[in-house]
Amino acid sequence: MREQTLAQLETPALLLDEARMDRNIERMQARMRRLGVSFRPHVKTSKCIDVARRIMAAPEGPITVSTLREAEYFAAHGVRDIMYAVGIAPNKLAHVMALQDKGVRLSLVLDNLETARFLAERAEAEGREFEVLIEIDSDGHRSGVPADAKELLAIGRFLQHTGIEVKGVLTHAGSSYDCESPDAIRVVAAQERDAAVHAAQRLRAAGIACPEVSVGSTPTALLAEHLDGVTEVRAGVFVYFDLVMAGLSVCRIEDIALSVLATVIGHQHDKGWTILDAGWMALSRDRGTASQSVDQGYGLVCDLQGRPLEDFILVGANQEHGIMGRRSGKAGGAAPLPIGTQVRILPNHACPTGAQYGQYKVLGRGGEITATWHRFNGW
Amino acid sequence: MREQTLAQLETPALLLDEARMDRNIERMQARMRRLGVSFRPHVKTSKCIDVARRIMAAPEGPITVSTLREAEYFAAHGVRDIMYAVGIAPNKLAHVMALQDKGVRLSLVLDNLETARFLAERAEAEGREFEVLIEIDSDGHRSGVPADAKELLAIGRFLQHTGIEVKGVLTHAGSSYDCESPDAIRVVAAQERDAAVHAAQRLRAAGIACPEVSVGSTPTALLAEHLDGVTEVRAGVFVYFDLVMAGLSVCRIEDIALSVLATVIGHQHDKGWTILDAGWMALSRDRGTASQSVDQGYGLVCDLQGRPLEDFILVGANQEHGIMGRRSGKAGGAAPLPIGTQVRILPNHACPTGAQYGQYKVLGRGGEITATWHRFNGW
Repeated sequence: MREQTLAQLETPALLLDEARMDRNIERMQARMRRLGVSFRPHVKTSKCIDVARRIMAAPEGPITVSTLREAEYFAAHGVRDIMYAVGIAPNKLAHVMALQDKGVRLSLVLDNLETARFLAERAEAEGREFEVLIEIDSDGHRSGVPADAKELLAIGRFLQHTGIEVKGVLTHAGSSYDCESPDAIRVVAAQERDAAVHAAQRLRAAGIACPEVSVGSTPTALLAEHLDGVTEVRAGVFVYFDLVMAGLSVCRIEDIALSVLATVIGHQHDKGWTILDAGWMALSRDRGTASQSVDQGYGLVCDLQGRPLEDFILVGANQEHGIMGRRSGKAGGAAPLPIGTQVRILPNHACPTGAQYGQYKVLGRGGEITATWHRFNGW
Repeated sequence: MREQTLAQLETPALLLDEARMDRNIERMQARMRRLGVSFRPHVKTSKCIDVARRIMAAPEGPITVSTLREAEYFAAHGVRDIMYAVGIAPNKLAHVMALQDKGVRLSLVLDNLETARFLAERAEAEGREFEVLIEIDSDGHRSGVPADAKELLAIGRFLQHTGIEVKGVLTHAGSSYDCESPDAIRVVAAQERDAAVHAAQRLRAAGIACPEVSVGSTPTALLAEHLDGVTEVRAGVFVYFDLVMAGLSVCRIEDIALSVLATVIGHQHDKGWTILDAGWMALSRDRGTASQSVDQGYGLVCDLQGRPLEDFILVGANQEHGIMGRRSGKAGGAAPLPIGTQVRILPNHACPTGAQYGQYKVLGRGGEITATWHRFNGW
């Protein structure tokens, strides 16, 4: 396509800063090499083959997905090694089998005997093979069986007995998002690793092969001191980073590759407000920084080079209106931005913000739009 | 299409209860008749022609939109009278003119002289006519010029002088969403009406015709005691309602027409948690009930008939995982729902939840899926 300038875009628009993204990818890949683990990037953040191709080790994957729609889309683009990292439900098995029929090696996740039983019944009824990872609960934040629970071995033995391959164990230290310091993340990373490795050791001691030990979240992947015993890491948000990650000191503000381009449409001078045409629909309702030491409202306002405009954030948002004001709440100080001025807003959380858009406008190194990359949403 | 049962759907899926929706529409239309005003429904909630056709007075409209993409889509479906109710930005005028060229009567909104000036310049340069509503700030929550401000007349005179039609004034009492009682909503409704009517009177006294006086929000539309002097009402969320509206006593829980169908994929028995395959991506990050007297978490869990399951809500959510637990936080009591059980989750706010989906599964009176209606998102 012909290059576009930012001024030619209708707003709101989702910008992807290519240089920042490439740097983020290189950082994660270098870390994976140093830790000596394979990398199974989580493509739920981008939902875009153009982005995934820059992250994947090979055109066939491996990747991690959060929905079968992602599996479907990436399979259509040639990816063959896919882990669906959400506990499998009975109503999804027909879809799983359709994906297998397209040549996809799709691994499934479960954390209980009841699920193992319906999977075994279906495998037998349909003459199918499924490969499964058992989810381990390493921090009490969501799903998974504790690494030292009796049920872990019961699940493993049942699967082995019914001919379903136990490909491995996986865990996700979601609590790393709630840490208050890099040291706290390192503790969570060690806990994540230890839980997964311990679970795998128990399964192996019971005669179940369990080749894979899969862990991951962006904070723990970047801060783990070692990953001995782990075979692969999953992470997604690192590709763009966001204000929550910056608040965790996992990245810098200037690493954030995703932003929302918005335009000034009004002012409330007495309140020090500038009204933008990007509200919570454009940024998402995510307020992940609200519980961090610096609350960034609905997003941090930057100039077109991506540099923060003093302490201006979206202090409030309606569906299609953003209210830009000082983080301090004080009015005054800066000269008001004229009507029509464009700004870039860095999001709290890249995943929900990205999900509000059907495309990325790729911002090249010269500050021009060099490409439009499509992304998809939904299930 | 052939009817589907809920059990045949892959989850998460967005369900639209047709009987509830029709009842909600009838209620609003009856109110508009009683108040003696025309109705310009806001289609930002549904973004779906099948829904809009049930609300609109005629196939040509009128409607209110929040994005030019909505205007584009509804114009392609024959709608001709469209108000774009967000302050117009310079980078959207080419799109506005393209819509005019398709035969759409698109009214624009502004609240300042700077915008009026670029509109006038563009009108002259392109030989175009634009019609404009001046936005009035009736409650200090967002955009708009105060009804008694000097600038209101300056804007009106400037527009009239440059040949741009002042179609009217509009205001939106967004603060009605923060009210704590129906009486408080009635006060806000009176304030909304009075501000708009007063602004129109001032413009008319200055010789500016200002035929339309447009107000609206779902709470104020349903609770205003009278709308003397108002010519039209805008409202959107009434078509589905949601938990925020129920928390405001504007509707009952059993009026909520939108729900997310989800499936049980696991349990954490010691915590009293049931894990569902619908997380914040499926419900949105909206936590609008967090500031109300009953916090519904990420949504209220119901059975397949749409009846609340005791006090179970989504107490937490990951991207694709919902954590169902008691509102009280206590574990125990109810027998755990078996893996594979489907539930319906009522959303905090219909607009952002709907925006996570590309289609509605229409739930007929017999509890079967009778149709799939497409919706769109983005800009």
